[in-house]
Amino acid sequence: MKLLPESLRCAESTSGVVLVVHGGAGTILPENLTPQLEDAFKHSLASALRAGYDDLQQGKSAIDAVETAVRVLEDDPLFNAGRGAVFTADGRNELDAAIMDGGTGKAGAVAGVVKPKNPITLARAVMERTPFVFLAGAGADRLAEDLHLAIVDPPYFWTETRWKQLNDQQKRESEGSASGGDGFTMSLSEDNKFGTVGAVAVDNAGNVAGATSTGGMTNKRYGRVGDSPVIGAGTWADNETCAVSATGHGEYFLRLAVAHDIAARMRYTGVSLENAAAEVIHHEVSKIGGSGGVIAIDRHGNAALPFNTAGMYRGYITRDGTVHVSIYREE
Amino acid sequence: MKLLPESLRCAESTSGVVLVVHGGAGTILPENLTPQLEDAFKHSLASALRAGYDDLQQGKSAIDAVETAVRVLEDDPLFNAGRGAVFTADGRNELDAAIMDGGTGKAGAVAGVVKPKNPITLARAVMERTPFVFLAGAGADRLAEDLHLAIVDPPYFWTETRWKQLNDQQKRESEGSASGGDGFTMSLSEDNKFGTVGAVAVDNAGNVAGATSTGGMTNKRYGRVGDSPVIGAGTWADNETCAVSATGHGEYFLRLAVAHDIAARMRYTGVSLENAAAEVIHHEVSKIGGSGGVIAIDRHGNAALPFNTAGMYRGYITRDGTVHVSIYREE
Repeated sequence: MKLLPESLRCAESTSGVVLVVHGGAGTILPENLTPQLEDAFKHSLASALRAGYDDLQQGKSAIDAVETAVRVLEDDPLFNAGRGAVFTADGRNELDAAIMDGGTGKAGAVAGVVKPKNPITLARAVMERTPFVFLAGAGADRLAEDLHLAIVDPPYFWTETRWKQLNDQQKRESEGSASGGDGFTMSLSEDNKFGTVGAVAVDNAGNVAGATSTGGMTNKRYGRVGDSPVIGAGTWADNETCAVSATGHGEYFLRLAVAHDIAARMRYTGVSLENAAAEVIHHEVSKIGGSGGVIAIDRHGNAALPFNTAGMYRGYITRDGTVHVSIYREE
Repeated sequence: MKLLPESLRCAESTSGVVLVVHGGAGTILPENLTPQLEDAFKHSLASALRAGYDDLQQGKSAIDAVETAVRVLEDDPLFNAGRGAVFTADGRNELDAAIMDGGTGKAGAVAGVVKPKNPITLARAVMERTPFVFLAGAGADRLAEDLHLAIVDPPYFWTETRWKQLNDQQKRESEGSASGGDGFTMSLSEDNKFGTVGAVAVDNAGNVAGATSTGGMTNKRYGRVGDSPVIGAGTWADNETCAVSATGHGEYFLRLAVAHDIAARMRYTGVSLENAAAEVIHHEVSKIGGSGGVIAIDRHGNAALPFNTAGMYRGYITRDGTVHVSIYREE
């Protein structure tokens, strides 16, 4: 396998880590973010890390920590998950989430839900309180109600920023289709498909866990589901290898089973987490034209955060509680 | 890796094959099937094989052949896919399907659709006519309508056998919950979760393809989705390794990313298709209590059909047009 330049690999991996989070990857450039917005993103990533870290410090499991961290990001309108989810073409917010426990190999996922305040908590309920793994649509919403999880009305998910993004996107697409679009075109411009959130963690017992939550793509149609809720594509966890949460252009991540492929390379070729994650993102995903990144952790606290986009909202916290957050490539 | 006894492996693999189909795995025992029903199943499997073989003989692609074969099985009420789909708890038929092209690495999948006559054809349309990979629910049905695919009314999917299975299953579950069920119990008895159909093929150009279609579990609730429409779990195709279609208790296949794991073992450890497929079914799936099987083919025409249940409706056709169909383990 072709290895990456040392400089790049070093920037994307570290050790002694207990929890990693991401808030999406994409064309995130300093000229597009005000210093105030940069600070807000970093503050929120750090809050998620500290909340999950508190769980781990109290002896809770990696599953607890990733759920807690993702809930913080879902509750923050800055990110395209939970509260800040983007709008579908018909002005709705359809949410996807998945969680996996590397100790038990159990998983839970939901797609296209519109009612739960925290889709990641519903995904965890699917894993722990039903014989299922994957629920979609109105049926999944019904489970949230039957289990008395926190339910919100649609206006909860309404944010001015996302509504404006929908209007802008629809304007761009109507201009595009006027010049020869086929009616099924979804603009795959960089800014309408990112912002997914996720977390991976390792707990005191050496169990790893992964969690991912998203509002999908702005102006999405036809019940489109990306990689986030798909076990093996956007989310994975196995103590023998690693936990992974992905973000990016989901169709490419689905076609490559990205999260499982990283784990499979570790398991079958003995390569490190760092090299497995970097190879899949920089070689496999890039080769087919996909963009995005992953966060991954193994049971020894090695973490990798490779991405092939200009930036990825990301951060990690080490065993001693030191928080590192960053946005752009060179940080 | 622990290898299987030679006798078992030989019964489950062969070479010189161009197309393999399955019609589900489960507690399929001679005492549960009349000779007439056995003949009907075998006749239908053979029809599917011959239809897909005709495509290949005409120089069509592996994708064409697997779609054609799966459509034959979807149109036959004997199988739990398309026409013969089982009923959900509220008396509906919710269909899932996926298709993947090993030459291009492209894929299409749909979950929870109720309108298309042939869900596999909708999955193929997602792959070839949209920028998406995975669509769920009403949105996916809308695409079928917008593309003018064949649409049917709900009574098309009504069959007396499946309706009786729903009533029997609901009776069993109500007896179960009366004796302490938790309200989320879905009986996982052998006969309510099998009957998925699938096909894998290799064409003259050496491209492999895989396709899977299912009606899911009898009496399913909460929008449950199994492994069939999940790329990497129930369906996979990659020319470098193999094409796979799975059938069985989907939750276990999702948790193991079964289809991608078979391909990953071939790619990263150099093991044969036969051994990769047998190890995943007989070791990994069995270890966590899962039941079912897969059909798989590589570009050289090696095929594997391992299953850990009493039977699997299955068949393959060789380059010279010889058809082999079987149901039970010892055939």
